[in-house]
Amino acid sequence: MGFISDLEISIAKTNSLLCIGLDPILNKIPAHLQTKKDFIFLFNKLIIDSTHNLVCCYKPNIAFYASEGIYGLRQLEKTIQYLHEEYPGTAVILDAKRGDIGTTAAQYAREAFEVYKADATTVNPFLGFDSIEPYLKYKDKGVIILCRTSNRGAADFQDLGVYPSNEVRSLKPVTVRQKSSLEARTIKPLYYHIAKQVLSWNKRYKNCLLVVGATWPEQLKEIRGIAPDMFFLIPGIGTQGGDIEATIASGIRKDGSGLIISASRSVLYAESGKNFAEAARIETIKLRDTINTYR
Amino acid sequence: MGFISDLEISIAKTNSLLCIGLDPILNKIPAHLQTKKDFIFLFNKLIIDSTHNLVCCYKPNIAFYASEGIYGLRQLEKTIQYLHEEYPGTAVILDAKRGDIGTTAAQYAREAFEVYKADATTVNPFLGFDSIEPYLKYKDKGVIILCRTSNRGAADFQDLGVYPSNEVRSLKPVTVRQKSSLEARTIKPLYYHIAKQVLSWNKRYKNCLLVVGATWPEQLKEIRGIAPDMFFLIPGIGTQGGDIEATIASGIRKDGSGLIISASRSVLYAESGKNFAEAARIETIKLRDTINTYR
Repeated sequence: MGFISDLEISIAKTNSLLCIGLDPILNKIPAHLQTKKDFIFLFNKLIIDSTHNLVCCYKPNIAFYASEGIYGLRQLEKTIQYLHEEYPGTAVILDAKRGDIGTTAAQYAREAFEVYKADATTVNPFLGFDSIEPYLKYKDKGVIILCRTSNRGAADFQDLGVYPSNEVRSLKPVTVRQKSSLEARTIKPLYYHIAKQVLSWNKRYKNCLLVVGATWPEQLKEIRGIAPDMFFLIPGIGTQGGDIEATIASGIRKDGSGLIISASRSVLYAESGKNFAEAARIETIKLRDTINTYR
Repeated sequence: MGFISDLEISIAKTNSLLCIGLDPILNKIPAHLQTKKDFIFLFNKLIIDSTHNLVCCYKPNIAFYASEGIYGLRQLEKTIQYLHEEYPGTAVILDAKRGDIGTTAAQYAREAFEVYKADATTVNPFLGFDSIEPYLKYKDKGVIILCRTSNRGAADFQDLGVYPSNEVRSLKPVTVRQKSSLEARTIKPLYYHIAKQVLSWNKRYKNCLLVVGATWPEQLKEIRGIAPDMFFLIPGIGTQGGDIEATIASGIRKDGSGLIISASRSVLYAESGKNFAEAARIETIKLRDTINTYR
């Protein structure tokens, strides 16, 4: 049992690596729903009802609910509850990207897994192991750690060239005299180092996944090389412009699986009128089948 | 106007660099309050009433509220509302450490500044500039960017030795032939690079601050060297063990200001019985005065 084995079952059952990101943008929700009380939940429900047998999981991003305050968070609660009740076996990833010191991270892990009852959540590794450990201790839950994100700014820090960790504790200027150590090693980007670190955490906890953006197939390939057996969550196809063929070619696992490919806006807002749920279904089928063509 | 100038006024008025972290731990809240309906808010209110003229700001960490679900978040709302109404001029920092791609970061900025009406919030820089920019655009608000955190795991990634950014875009193995560039530069840790980057963002936006843990005075000194004029938020004194004398010696700005020194557990839970608010006041005076001794 646990998130990863449940996910494998869901992928087999739906024949789909696709995940729908449930990120409601209020002014894009069809006008005929806007007058209803729980219209965000209702929008999600209709999307879910229309696509549930075509995707391996759903991924609500909590930011899109939290920005509407407590009303928004109730819509999130209702959405996850609906998924668990109506479609058990369909995993729910809470996209929250939290990161804080250990005692605080324990509170955030409760938020994701106990308050919202997510099956997995995304986390930010910037604060190091003690910021991730409280999540890892929920053995049945998936912990999806940011490695190389899909946005432009990802390069600002995630691509910085980093020294191997055994040299790091005693940081000293490097001179040409340190010839042998320089020749023996290569400088690798930060995301590479994170992937290596998560791989080592995963050996012990077995519930880690990585986030790698679809917008960077080269980096995806490099990270697949480091972690040949792990699952990756791949945001960035659709509106963000990531290419499906390149993503699959660079990131697919040897068994034709190992990727959760997430689309949000291109599915949710495929059409703005009364037929939005049917339009979302058609777009979902298209994406799933395109992905399967290249698997 | 704006967060930083308001903060300067508050520091002058209270003669205090101290900030109280409002991080309610439910089983540490005195028993006689636990039966009340809004007991988290009530606990905060009594702490605030007892300490408001001794601190320059308050810093609720949203994790400690979110882990209690919607009930907890209502307590957070009430706490911030109370602060704004009863003690205008006392800044409220929402400690949230969010970090996401631009479109999502805009939702999180709304959460901090519009839903909870915080005067400033902490953010995680791992996703780069486009994850911070939506916050920076709120010109009157403070954007407090993680640089070197107070926890043990901070060293895992924040201390990694990094190449200067102009070399980074074309990552290649370094060989001894690249002698001149190696001699000309030194490898610096990631947090150093982040401080430099934030300094450049702050030139344009003028509303950035940095988080630097009190548990690392050496790093604090180095970062003060990079950013001589910026405000730093310093968590980690008290329960986490940071030393006040070393923190001030390493981090104080030339004008005797430039630091927000945050304590939470050591103040909130100074006593567990009915006199908790008075005990918190005594501990707050002690901390404020100790800080002022070394300024």
